Amino acid sequence: MSSTFGRLFTITTWGESHGPALGVVIEGCPAGLAISEDEIQRDLDRRRVGQSIVTSTRDEKDRVEILSGVFEGITTGAPISLMTTNTDQRSKNYDNLRDVFRPGHADYTYWAKYGHRDHRGGGRSSSRETWGRVAAGAIARKLLAQGGTDIFAYAAEIGGIEMQTFDRDQIEQNLVRCPDPVAAERMVEAITRVRKERDSIGGIVEVRAQGVPPGLGDPTFDKLDALIGMAMLSIPATKGVEIGGGFALARQRGSDANDAFIVEGGRVHTRSNNAGGTLGGISTGEEIVVRVALKPTSSIAREQDTVDTDLQPRKLVVEGRHDPCVVPRAVPVVEAMLALTLADLLLVNRAARLHPDQ
Amino acid sequence: MSSTFGRLFTITTWGESHGPALGVVIEGCPAGLAISEDEIQRDLDRRRVGQSIVTSTRDEKDRVEILSGVFEGITTGAPISLMTTNTDQRSKNYDNLRDVFRPGHADYTYWAKYGHRDHRGGGRSSSRETWGRVAAGAIARKLLAQGGTDIFAYAAEIGGIEMQTFDRDQIEQNLVRCPDPVAAERMVEAITRVRKERDSIGGIVEVRAQGVPPGLGDPTFDKLDALIGMAMLSIPATKGVEIGGGFALARQRGSDANDAFIVEGGRVHTRSNNAGGTLGGISTGEEIVVRVALKPTSSIAREQDTVDTDLQPRKLVVEGRHDPCVVPRAVPVVEAMLALTLADLLLVNRAARLHPDQ
Amino acid sequence: MSSTFGRLFTITTWGESHGPALGVVIEGCPAGLAISEDEIQRDLDRRRVGQSIVTSTRDEKDRVEILSGVFEGITTGAPISLMTTNTDQRSKNYDNLRDVFRPGHADYTYWAKYGHRDHRGGGRSSSRETWGRVAAGAIARKLLAQGGTDIFAYAAEIGGIEMQTFDRDQIEQNLVRCPDPVAAERMVEAITRVRKERDSIGGIVEVRAQGVPPGLGDPTFDKLDALIGMAMLSIPATKGVEIGGGFALARQRGSDANDAFIVEGGRVHTRSNNAGGTLGGISTGEEIVVRVALKPTSSIAREQDTVDTDLQPRKLVVEGRHDPCVVPRAVPVVEAMLALTLADLLLVNRAARLHPDQ
Amino acid sequence: MSSTFGRLFTITTWGESHGPALGVVIEGCPAGLAISEDEIQRDLDRRRVGQSIVTSTRDEKDRVEILSGVFEGITTGAPISLMTTNTDQRSKNYDNLRDVFRPGHADYTYWAKYGHRDHRGGGRSSSRETWGRVAAGAIARKLLAQGGTDIFAYAAEIGGIEMQTFDRDQIEQNLVRCPDPVAAERMVEAITRVRKERDSIGGIVEVRAQGVPPGLGDPTFDKLDALIGMAMLSIPATKGVEIGGGFALARQRGSDANDAFIVEGGRVHTRSNNAGGTLGGISTGEEIVVRVALKPTSSIAREQDTVDTDLQPRKLVVEGRHDPCVVPRAVPVVEAMLALTLADLLLVNRAARLHPDQ
Repeated sequence: MSSTFGRLFTITTWGESHGPALGVVIEGCPAGLAISEDEIQRDLDRRRVGQSIVTSTRDEKDRVEILSGVFEGITTGAPISLMTTNTDQRSKNYDNLRDVFRPGHADYTYWAKYGHRDHRGGGRSSSRETWGRVAAGAIARKLLAQGGTDIFAYAAEIGGIEMQTFDRDQIEQNLVRCPDPVAAERMVEAITRVRKERDSIGGIVEVRAQGVPPGLGDPTFDKLDALIGMAMLSIPATKGVEIGGGFALARQRGSDANDAFIVEGGRVHTRSNNAGGTLGGISTGEEIVVRVALKPTSSIAREQDTVDTDLQPRKLVVEGRHDPCVVPRAVPVVEAMLALTLADLLLVNRAARLHPDQ
Repeated sequence: MSSTFGRLFTITTWGESHGPALGVVIEGCPAGLAISEDEIQRDLDRRRVGQSIVTSTRDEKDRVEILSGVFEGITTGAPISLMTTNTDQRSKNYDNLRDVFRPGHADYTYWAKYGHRDHRGGGRSSSRETWGRVAAGAIARKLLAQGGTDIFAYAAEIGGIEMQTFDRDQIEQNLVRCPDPVAAERMVEAITRVRKERDSIGGIVEVRAQGVPPGLGDPTFDKLDALIGMAMLSIPATKGVEIGGGFALARQRGSDANDAFIVEGGRVHTRSNNAGGTLGGISTGEEIVVRVALKPTSSIAREQDTVDTDLQPRKLVVEGRHDPCVVPRAVPVVEAMLALTLADLLLVNRAARLHPDQ
Repeated sequence: MSSTFGRLFTITTWGESHGPALGVVIEGCPAGLAISEDEIQRDLDRRRVGQSIVTSTRDEKDRVEILSGVFEGITTGAPISLMTTNTDQRSKNYDNLRDVFRPGHADYTYWAKYGHRDHRGGGRSSSRETWGRVAAGAIARKLLAQGGTDIFAYAAEIGGIEMQTFDRDQIEQNLVRCPDPVAAERMVEAITRVRKERDSIGGIVEVRAQGVPPGLGDPTFDKLDALIGMAMLSIPATKGVEIGGGFALARQRGSDANDAFIVEGGRVHTRSNNAGGTLGGISTGEEIVVRVALKPTSSIAREQDTVDTDLQPRKLVVEGRHDPCVVPRAVPVVEAMLALTLADLLLVNRAARLHPDQ
Repeated sequence: MSSTFGRLFTITTWGESHGPALGVVIEGCPAGLAISEDEIQRDLDRRRVGQSIVTSTRDEKDRVEILSGVFEGITTGAPISLMTTNTDQRSKNYDNLRDVFRPGHADYTYWAKYGHRDHRGGGRSSSRETWGRVAAGAIARKLLAQGGTDIFAYAAEIGGIEMQTFDRDQIEQNLVRCPDPVAAERMVEAITRVRKERDSIGGIVEVRAQGVPPGLGDPTFDKLDALIGMAMLSIPATKGVEIGGGFALARQRGSDANDAFIVEGGRVHTRSNNAGGTLGGISTGEEIVVRVALKPTSSIAREQDTVDTDLQPRKLVVEGRHDPCVVPRAVPVVEAMLALTLADLLLVNRAARLHPDQ
């Protein structure tokens, strides 16, 4: 069930980048939630390619259709099936990739695992698969919003350029989704430059969740940290994740790293938030802060050494319309994965106590 | 099922640090594997406290007993139950913690979640829980060894001191399990120093798996990277994980980061290994390389600000016999978690193809 | 995940009887299996309504589309999405059911559980949901056929009329799918009679699997018997299931009930097959024989006492085009559920031994 | 995970009949439930052998120990580990069974599946495994009792002798646990007779649950009926299960079988209860009624034809101390399995609605 995520609020994505359609089935969304195609589309539009000069020029409309599970605008508790049809596929573009392994891509590993693959645009391994995550994530966010939980992500670093200031209102005002408009401009320049050089760059997406109730996440293996780690490292191109202080904490002392407990507004808080909103794998109620490292786009229009399915050496230039940096479009995907993780834990948590209302 | 890990080769751990016993039940270990208590004990002895001046002085014998699933030295396919009894508990030491939340610990979050907790030594959130992981991990490693897979971990960094040289034979020759003997000496000094200062430090454990067959890991959500991320971030005190180049890849260009494919010894390899042994979430056959960030031990014998269950401010000094740095003892736990992840994927992978022998 | 069945070969069905479409996502089908829409359609056509005078007169084309997971006619290992669009819905027919609970249907329980429901044609509880089971079952049967396993079901009893002779070739030669042509004729008469009387009747479907390898099913809770029980009792209108001798065994002595082991054709067989092909919950290699009891159709065009959502008494006549007996159309559904159960266990069984080829 | 049952309230049993110990780990029991070893022992004592002349004369003390998950008499939300040590094993008795397959037992199928088995007393397939089910079931019953749900089972039929009257108070007053004292006497005689004749008989256990809230069970595959079917058919020796009218409904007309809805005491009821407390796989709030068919004990001290692991014919007499009828001791196991099923669904149901308290 490797295309399924979650335990009670679960999603199953299906579809290949060059098949007739893509979709997601959401199981376990509680009955009684108002949801519309327009609300889902809003998040999908942020993930879409062809948005700007820093993304691919492919034109994917990505229009969502709700096929089940919603009756008269309200969820019924039945599986919610969301679908979009693929358009503007240029599968012919991929004919030269039928027998050769693109470096940095899943071509070789799929071939080694399955003995056979859909080579068109990466097939199942394409980041086009994240359509379903964002569509389902919109519903998870709506569910979380009922309890006052708000999630947002942004580009914290691109091509080595780090954000220096934080203004949430700036995030959607620039092409790279960076909360620092000055850094954003430099990031756009860096992307423009590598695109011209037929190269690509990576970066870091940061995501925060505010208004998370204490108690989400479960001991031992289903720790909130562990589930966030799984969620984030399931996104294509991710190679690292850290929570709160993350790797920097490995260089600190306990007397600096520990967050002192205080009482504010009648409930327990911490003075600092090095823990990033979790202790013992369970949410503290403080802001959840997660950073995700994304490698540079693997598809580059430069000649690279590789081999083919006959194990012969080959030179390869990956043509096609690819994002020179995946960070801007990864922002809504990261948001979606955190929302899906938290929505699931919110439902799981209802079973934690004999009398859950206490 | 938050105390259960894995899909086909699964483990369920149980027990609190101050209860009568601790254990683990392993389900889905294939029949026909030779396994003895001595083999399991060997790994457990490396996890044990009281090993050296850099670890806690508690004396835990940690002797494993096989209670089921092994008949005449061979696994039968039935659940394998492993248990150890708790000794040298000084529960009285914890009486002053009944109503107060230790900073950096799970005390507050367990209380918020469950309304009630076993306060003695952290109860279920204690790193004592990792006993079962290491015990089960020994069986997973034995299973993997049948196919030529070898896993080993080591301290790559402690208190900001990074290893500079790598000699695998050195790892178990020093108290901190560092493959660089010079760095190891400095690490021991650093730990000794913080212990005297009633403080603690963090560090980084690195783990490698060699001889991993290509094809392990599954598309979309059960990517090898994702499952490794979950496994590692379920270990107490971990706050970050990266695979291969990890966060450094976020600062590279695609032309540097992509690993060129080559053929060597009749099979596909990559010239470099920035990917850390996975592409598209599936093993390439190259070495798997993972780094895990551990925060400094939360228990420090310095006065800290905190609050109690009545939401009143308190000053707290955490007494007791605690590791000033968790890295040396985390090494076998990290190994175990990677072994458990790979053993599970090895079995799952048997279902990937119509004719698995092809 | 109540709309998901299976552990390795899993299906997730979605869709309501009066929504825009219905579908199923199959995860974990091994790569390398040849499959076409026509093969799937063949089983779907047997499930379809409007086939004959003994079924509903609704006209559902039920045409299947493969939307993912199959490339150039061969499964890739990716999720297989199958869909059909709903046509000939007459939702207006159901307006009078918005606020009233049909006796014998799920109307009241869905309302009690979810507080809100899609009342049109039963929504999610409609037997229309079984479309996805049969579509996915066709793929499971293809997979099983590779190993020589063959599954077929038939009407063993309708309205108290039991089959007296068995000729497999007769099954699809009559309207009720009974292997005894004489009994079949009487069954058709019985159904015709109750239809005229605005009533309905129940019956028993029997299913057999031949060529099942020994070893399928797992000890303790995932016994083959248990999983068959779950599979069958998840089919709408089923109220009982028995394996082999079933309830009759409860009246026998051990000396009669035990099947003696013999050797034939170089492998172990049993002289009789009271066990119905399973011992200790694991397949013996003998024919698997299962009987499933189906209650009479709940929708009857007679006045019945019921209540509405305001808890007021109501008289209700359920109009609409309903099967007076569900048995003939349940036959392919029962086959599908046994196929899905066995296909899943076949894959699970690959992990049972250290060296599975032994 | 074939030794694991449930989704949120899950149990994992382990241990063989002739190993050092047996146990069960319960995950997901909500925090805050008061539970003691004595309460658990009460149910275990009813399952124990050596109770009377109608059961085996083995002497198993079966004393339960709580090893984790309960602190100061209250569950903490952590896994609850329960264990008992095996005593009075006479493994030598089984030496002659090492290479031969007992008819009606799992000996052959385990050997076919795993290539190797613990032959002593059936090993994992022994009904001794049900110890853990009854122990965990006691906790599930305590949980259900908080909401007013009460479960009880009894012998409805033994050796063809059916109960004719029902007096709940009689159940524990006779050796066979039959609510009809007259039938009970005849059942005891029948068992005594077959024991003398070195034979065995089967029977039917009926179980009822009263005070079940409406809404338990989930659409499609996790129907209450399906989960009950799985639960019951996972009990050793069971070959059939029916809910409410069961197989008899297959012979009725819809106008008789449908239960009319009425309002009584301010809530919806049904006038009759042919459905046995479920509609569309979800509880109605009416009494849940289930019947389970048990085959005669397979171990009989008569000569039977069989084969050995070299596929040679053998004559076999199964010596040892076996129950001539498993029904009386199966009664608490059937109760436990229904309790485990309902407790799990109760927790799952908390996630069904946006605002569960409505």
